[in-house]
Parts: sequence; structure tokens; C-alpha cells
Amino acid sequence: MLYLIGLGLADETDVTVKGLELIKKAERVYLEAYTSILLVDIANLEAYYGRPIIVADREMVESASDEILAGADTSDVAFLVVGDPFGATTHTDLVLRARELQIPVRSVHNASIMSAIGATGLQLYNFGQTVSMVFFTDTWKPSSFYDRLKENQQIGLHSLLLLDIKVKEQSLANLARGRKIYEPPRFMTVAECASQMLETEEERGEGVCGPQNLAVGVARVGAWNQKMAAGTLKQLSGIDLGAPLHSLVLLGKKTHYLERDFVRDFAVKQDVFDTVWSELYEGKQ
Amino acid sequence: MLYLIGLGLADETDVTVKGLELIKKAERVYLEAYTSILLVDIANLEAYYGRPIIVADREMVESASDEILAGADTSDVAFLVVGDPFGATTHTDLVLRARELQIPVRSVHNASIMSAIGATGLQLYNFGQTVSMVFFTDTWKPSSFYDRLKENQQIGLHSLLLLDIKVKEQSLANLARGRKIYEPPRFMTVAECASQMLETEEERGEGVCGPQNLAVGVARVGAWNQKMAAGTLKQLSGIDLGAPLHSLVLLGKKTHYLERDFVRDFAVKQDVFDTVWSELYEGKQ
Repeated sequence: MLYLIGLGLADETDVTVKGLELIKKAERVYLEAYTSILLVDIANLEAYYGRPIIVADREMVESASDEILAGADTSDVAFLVVGDPFGATTHTDLVLRARELQIPVRSVHNASIMSAIGATGLQLYNFGQTVSMVFFTDTWKPSSFYDRLKENQQIGLHSLLLLDIKVKEQSLANLARGRKIYEPPRFMTVAECASQMLETEEERGEGVCGPQNLAVGVARVGAWNQKMAAGTLKQLSGIDLGAPLHSLVLLGKKTHYLERDFVRDFAVKQDVFDTVWSELYEGKQ
Repeated sequence: MLYLIGLGLADETDVTVKGLELIKKAERVYLEAYTSILLVDIANLEAYYGRPIIVADREMVESASDEILAGADTSDVAFLVVGDPFGATTHTDLVLRARELQIPVRSVHNASIMSAIGATGLQLYNFGQTVSMVFFTDTWKPSSFYDRLKENQQIGLHSLLLLDIKVKEQSLANLARGRKIYEPPRFMTVAECASQMLETEEERGEGVCGPQNLAVGVARVGAWNQKMAAGTLKQLSGIDLGAPLHSLVLLGKKTHYLERDFVRDFAVKQDVFDTVWSELYEGKQ
């Protein structure tokens, strides 16, 4: 059996009791470590589980999935994923490959940022499609996220933006020369995301994510030291919410007053929040 | 401290290790039991936790929240919610009330159907807003869900429909006479949901959810005996997926071929699925 086991969001104790029991009994334990991270080291997980962990990088999951699946028809393999196992495309690949090999698959679900974002007080029913924000470079500033935000905005909905993480990436020079030397990991911050949104608004000019649009920046959701900040994108572009992971929600105009009350409590400056709210949001949809 | 603790989706072992430890130590343990249910009895939970559980019905959470919060400034109260604690509006109320009373609040997140629905193989990025489907009566057939589905469909996105549950409801006659006699619980099935969608399409006629639209019905997501069925709404309106809880996903036209491959495996009839797919979905957005 292949068990896909979600680890939740913050630390080693966020695994479910069901998940933990399966990890302890599995023949081999893999950890997918390139689409998200826990806020603790792998050594902590190994100590907590009492099991060695094989780190599965993108290369391994995408091109060596048969290695992960080896023997899973007769014994149990645990494949651990931060958050819920079905957040990222590649695990669909892995399940499809397991099906081809007639290996049965079971999932142990867990918290995902896509539902835990409700901790902002914003209603999950009022979110549109989730959007990814990648790191811009000098020559590559993809703006397809802007189109998705616009679609959500036109029907008054909030947008959750998941921020890029770069783990085990090679520089262009090293890639070109085939040198397996990796850059230090990078995690996009709320401030970086807000700045890229403003830059794209500047370019596109369709009023989707300008300096006066309200948003909520969140850091380390699910951890006791989680942090939230509500304000304009202009304000958030200068904020420091500390250690990763960060995400951002762009508010939709359908925002309910109970959502407003909840979010206002995290406002960078409540007077600014109130002014922008009453001028641009209240009763606008 | 008020701890809002998600219980996940299926049974008592879906609680997180962190959540379980907090439940065992809490002064009082409440269970919110009207917006969702676990697939096991409350007695199982009490035995597993080694703690008595106070069932909090809608009346209690909405009008007696101070009772729940009593003493939470000096000791710990655990408020258990099936799925993730931030799926339903009323818990926002509870947190806002706790804030007024200056009671600190922490959340322990867990799996929610809103992310676990990824187990269908449909990408969470391709979902629009989530929609509720209530039980129609002879005189009350609200069609606002249809407008939401249409909004999602216009931008090619999938729609998750969460199906009505009726727990501790009074009949109109008993309500009018103030008799606290409750009807047996009812859980909407995939077949009932599909039938109501077809009935509304019949009425509205805007091509949002007709007999040929593809959908995936799911039952008991997260349990080992979870079941999925993909097919037209016409097919699903006659299907029996067994015990609750059920949900339904209406497919968007942006469906990726990898999503198609995954879902096709659950098809009620693969030839019907393939024909409808190639005529109405493939390359249509």
C-alpha cells in the first residue's frame, strides 16, 4: 500500500494519530520537500517518528517515482506531504503511476493552507480560485496571476495567493554547466508579494491590485506564533512578518461585516483600514 | 485559553497529536455537532479521549456562547469542530465574543472537505467558490446556488457543492407550538443534490447544470471506505453512494487532461464519460 500522509502546517505534532501510526509501521518513509515546508527540521521529525526519512526532491518524485513505489504492492510505503497530500500536481502523477502498477493507495488528510486560511476570519465560501505568485526576475515577470485575481474580483471574491518557495534550485550558470550546486532556499514574503502585485498593477492598470486595495498578509498559519496583518497593498509592501511561510489574501468586495470586524483587529493602522474600507469596499457589491 | 480544535473527517484517530493532547488536558470539552458529523459516535470519541463531551447544538453556540467561554480566561476550554475549525460562520462569532471578553484563542487546524476534495484528482487551483445546497421543500427551492455555479463556470472552474445536513431540526408544527421534539437527522445524498440541480436547470435554462454536465460525487472522503463516482448529472441523480457525508463537484471546462485521467477511473460508465468529455469538455476553454 502507498500511504499519502499529510503532515499539517507547523510542527511534528500536527500529524494525525492515524498518520503517525502508519508512519511508524511503514517499510520506508519519504518526505516531499519542495512544494512546502514544515516549521521544524527533518531531524525533529525523525526523532518524533523514530524512523529515518528519505527526502524526495522534485527530481525524484517526477523521474524516479518507481523507486518510491518499489515493493509497495506487498509492503507499506509512507509518502509524507506538508499540509494535505493533494495540494500539488505531482502527487496526482504519483497516484496515477501507482494505479498503473496496481498498487493500492490511501490518503490521510490534514490541514492545508487552503482551508486554514479561514483563521483570518474570512469565510471560505467567499474565496475564488487560489493563485500562485512566483519570484519575478529582471527578465521574467509573468502576469497570469493578475488575470486570475481579476476574475475573482469581478465576482466580489477573495483571492488566496500562495507564495513561491525555492528549494534546491540551481543558478543559471550552474545549470548550464551541469553542476549540481544548489542555491540557499528562498521563501517569498508578504512584502515581496505585495510589491510584485503593485508592479504588475502599474504595468496592467486595470485596477485589480493597486496601492489602495485591502489585503491580509499571514505568516506561519497554524503555529502558535502565527502572525496576520491587514492593510492596503502599499502598507503590506513594507511589512515584516518574520520567518516563513507567508501567504496573502486579496480582499473581495463582497466582504461581510463580520469578516471586516475580524480582520480589522489585525490592521496595520486601524484608521487607514477604516477609511479605505468605507470609501472602496462597504456596500460596493 | 479557548482552543478551537479540528477533528478531521472520518474517525477518532483523525485528530492531530497536538489536538489530542489539548483535549485530554482541557477543563471542559465541547463538540459542535450541527454543521458536520464524524463517521463515528460521540461515545467512541469520549472513550478515545478519556473525557466527557458536551454536545453544543446551534442554539447553544449562537445564544449561550458565554456559557462555553466561562472560565476560559483562567483555564482551558476545548471546542471541537469536525473538519477544520474555520469552515462555518458561527465559530467566527465565538472567536469575536472571546475577544470581547479578552479570552485568548488558539486554533488547531485539520483536514477540511474544502481541501480533501483534492482526493478526486481535481486540482484545488481549479476550483472557484464553494457552494451550499440546501434541501428543497415543496414551497422553497432557492436557486442562488445556480448563480454561483454559473459564475464559476464562466471562468472554467470546478465547483464544490457542500450538501445540507439537518440535525436536531423541529417540524413546522412542533416549532409553531414550541415543542422541543426533533426530527431524525437527514443528510443530503449525491443523488438528491444532482436531482435538485437538474430541477433548477429545468427552471432557469441557462445551461449551467443540465443532464449532460459532468460531475464527481463523493462519499465519506477521508475514510477507508470513501467512494467516488464520476458521470453526468443525469447518471449521478440515480446513484447510491451509501452512508453520509456526501459532496459533489461540478466539473469546469478548464479540466486538465491529468485531472480527466484521474477522474475517469471513477466513471459510472467510461464510454459515456469519454463521449461527453470529447463532445462538451475537451479543448472548450
